[in-house]
Amino acid sequence: MKSAALLEAPRAAPLSVTADLHASLSDPALTSMTLLNEITGDYPDAVSFAAGRPYEGHYRAEALHRHLRRYTRYLERERGLSAEQVRRTLFQYGPTKGTINELIVRQLQTDEGIQAGPEAVVVTTGCQEAMVLLLRALRRDERDVVLAAAPTYVGFTGAARLTEMAVHPVPEGPGGLDPADLARAVARARADGARPRACYVIPDFANPGGSRMSLDDRRRLLRVAEDLDILLIEDNPYSMFHDGRGRLPTLKSLDTTGRVVYIGSYAKTAYPGARIGYVVADQPVVQGGLFADQLAKLKSMFTLNTSTLAQAAIGGLLLEHDCSMERACAREAAVYRRNLRTLLDGLARRFPPDGDSGVSWNVPAGGLFAVVTVPFTADEQALEESARRFGVLWTPMRHFYAGTGGLRQLRLSYSVLTPHEITVGLDRLAALVEARSDRG
Amino acid sequence: MKSAALLEAPRAAPLSVTADLHASLSDPALTSMTLLNEITGDYPDAVSFAAGRPYEGHYRAEALHRHLRRYTRYLERERGLSAEQVRRTLFQYGPTKGTINELIVRQLQTDEGIQAGPEAVVVTTGCQEAMVLLLRALRRDERDVVLAAAPTYVGFTGAARLTEMAVHPVPEGPGGLDPADLARAVARARADGARPRACYVIPDFANPGGSRMSLDDRRRLLRVAEDLDILLIEDNPYSMFHDGRGRLPTLKSLDTTGRVVYIGSYAKTAYPGARIGYVVADQPVVQGGLFADQLAKLKSMFTLNTSTLAQAAIGGLLLEHDCSMERACAREAAVYRRNLRTLLDGLARRFPPDGDSGVSWNVPAGGLFAVVTVPFTADEQALEESARRFGVLWTPMRHFYAGTGGLRQLRLSYSVLTPHEITVGLDRLAALVEARSDRG
Repeated sequence: MKSAALLEAPRAAPLSVTADLHASLSDPALTSMTLLNEITGDYPDAVSFAAGRPYEGHYRAEALHRHLRRYTRYLERERGLSAEQVRRTLFQYGPTKGTINELIVRQLQTDEGIQAGPEAVVVTTGCQEAMVLLLRALRRDERDVVLAAAPTYVGFTGAARLTEMAVHPVPEGPGGLDPADLARAVARARADGARPRACYVIPDFANPGGSRMSLDDRRRLLRVAEDLDILLIEDNPYSMFHDGRGRLPTLKSLDTTGRVVYIGSYAKTAYPGARIGYVVADQPVVQGGLFADQLAKLKSMFTLNTSTLAQAAIGGLLLEHDCSMERACAREAAVYRRNLRTLLDGLARRFPPDGDSGVSWNVPAGGLFAVVTVPFTADEQALEESARRFGVLWTPMRHFYAGTGGLRQLRLSYSVLTPHEITVGLDRLAALVEARSDRG
Repeated sequence: MKSAALLEAPRAAPLSVTADLHASLSDPALTSMTLLNEITGDYPDAVSFAAGRPYEGHYRAEALHRHLRRYTRYLERERGLSAEQVRRTLFQYGPTKGTINELIVRQLQTDEGIQAGPEAVVVTTGCQEAMVLLLRALRRDERDVVLAAAPTYVGFTGAARLTEMAVHPVPEGPGGLDPADLARAVARARADGARPRACYVIPDFANPGGSRMSLDDRRRLLRVAEDLDILLIEDNPYSMFHDGRGRLPTLKSLDTTGRVVYIGSYAKTAYPGARIGYVVADQPVVQGGLFADQLAKLKSMFTLNTSTLAQAAIGGLLLEHDCSMERACAREAAVYRRNLRTLLDGLARRFPPDGDSGVSWNVPAGGLFAVVTVPFTADEQALEESARRFGVLWTPMRHFYAGTGGLRQLRLSYSVLTPHEITVGLDRLAALVEARSDRG
């Protein structure tokens, strides 16, 4: 009888996103991304310059098995673990800071010239978790703010919304973040009573802007951060993917005063499915230990520890390439170089500089993205038409400006496309430009 | 010259946990856990009743490979994916909600009689992330609060500190949470101007209390939640580990009005190294979709998606056991049953009920924990002496009460010990009790 009564009970009133749930869920930054994904999902057959995914042509399931075995062998032979300890390392809860910190530290030394002890590293569930941890740590109350090069990676904006940390934009030009602009933005924030804690920057082939900071600007940025007494959050997912003319030193490798917190990721250099990123936070803490220890304390309450299984797979991959991701992702880097050339050549052919198309673009020295300026408003409505009538997808740049900039710009991602697809996609983009230009 | 100047630059002032970082990092709930871990780490040779880890005797590296292959085969044969699609599923970014939702839904049906569509499930980086997502979603401002059975799992307390959500305790007795107590706590909170959003409860063998709610109380709890218009967050990591006398239906399986959000985890039934948990949130949302869709939006800003590699490994394990974790963890459940008997028998022998030891304990019907009341203050100092002089570790129950209860109680975890270790550990515990009792 009781059961029957229960079965007839009225269902609870539905939850309202705007009335019942956290404000981030109604935030334009998050909702616009969802809308974009929906448009993209509605046109699976379109050529997509929208996807931010890495090239997947070299993924092999057998490599997973090989990497796991390689890591297990390393634990046994190089680390001297017993069979029982190896099993524990693979299957049990792991240390909050991570299990493959020694290998990450070797990689940072090999690829980046960054000197860090394993105790300064916290392995995270992708670099996204690293951003959340950092913002959570630095946000004490509503007066704390962060600065970020604008246009800004939406993942950073999202992490800031979740932690209720205000983001003040610092304009980023083709040469990357200008340290003088940062100084001005910090002064403005302080004049308004805010406490700027850190500036988020991707010095190498920023997402979405594609810019790269010069060596001089990197050095100036470090001095400005020192003068302003703020941290720099350096995010480096793309530096391996240069155009063949080599790399510049990371901020972290130039940092002598402990101003830089460095975020790394194996999503692009290895593969995203492991969800392995990390943060290097070697800043000392008054009460003892490093900033990394405080981030680990937070992490223990977010995700306990990063999957030891996924860490083992990435650990084996690192070992297989002598802890050089530059070596590990050389084939992908070549694909991106080829695709970038195809894209830039294709744009130049379709929109000659002496023409009147009104189309221009940046020439990135690497990365996965280029930005194209078009003679029409590049919003969701234009994207929807682009997908439906012309079969080509891209990302409106306004999303990376919280709606306040990039209104006639679009981001083209070329990482997962073949040269043929890029060519077809550009033809379609040219048709869109023509159609939209006709309408003035 | 510039480089030389940089090299001589003064290092930045150290960060202060109390002045520069988020309040959760100075919170007693988090710092006491760190202190406990330190004490535990200082005595690696002690018999540890402190570890909350699952039994690890049946872990085999080869099983990982087998599970990954089994999942790959399933994608090819049952889901009809091409080789390219299979590789993408393993290596690329995955859907925010997860890749193995279909298998989890089958398992919920098989093991728990829970009917849920795959769209109602969000796969998370362990159940810890599920708690953070829920609390972030429900916390709009400082008036929102949650209730939790006290003593409370520290992971929930930690997630609440991170999201700045106040936790109001509801006393939990040997019979679990009393729905009347919940009603009183909600009324009190409302009288104080707070808005109670949900109550967190582990109906089956609570951590740390070990209690189990009766079927009647489960039904009453659902009705009370309905009357009070709050959600119930049901966390179910342990129900498989009953004492042999069977299981009770979960709240979720009894829920006809959509009051229950269900959190599950494969950390205990499979293994923790995958860090795979999930949340079932089938509550409708005014603006369309389910509560799960909103949690997924938040997740996309916390961790993007749960490791597809780790999901594949758990997916293969599920498939290998026809999506029954009860079958998959039968051997572990037998170990816990044996260990619980050994523990309870051992306690009864050492502290006979007609004696004057002042020691008593609960008799859990399953789970991984028992609670012992002792005739002395069970604090860090007692724990340190216990480890140093007697070689036995346990967890002070006060940690699960935010310091306000359980002062003379300790939690004994028996999941990773052999019967011999339990026997030796209890001898040492008895010696500690004797030594401390002498001091009055």
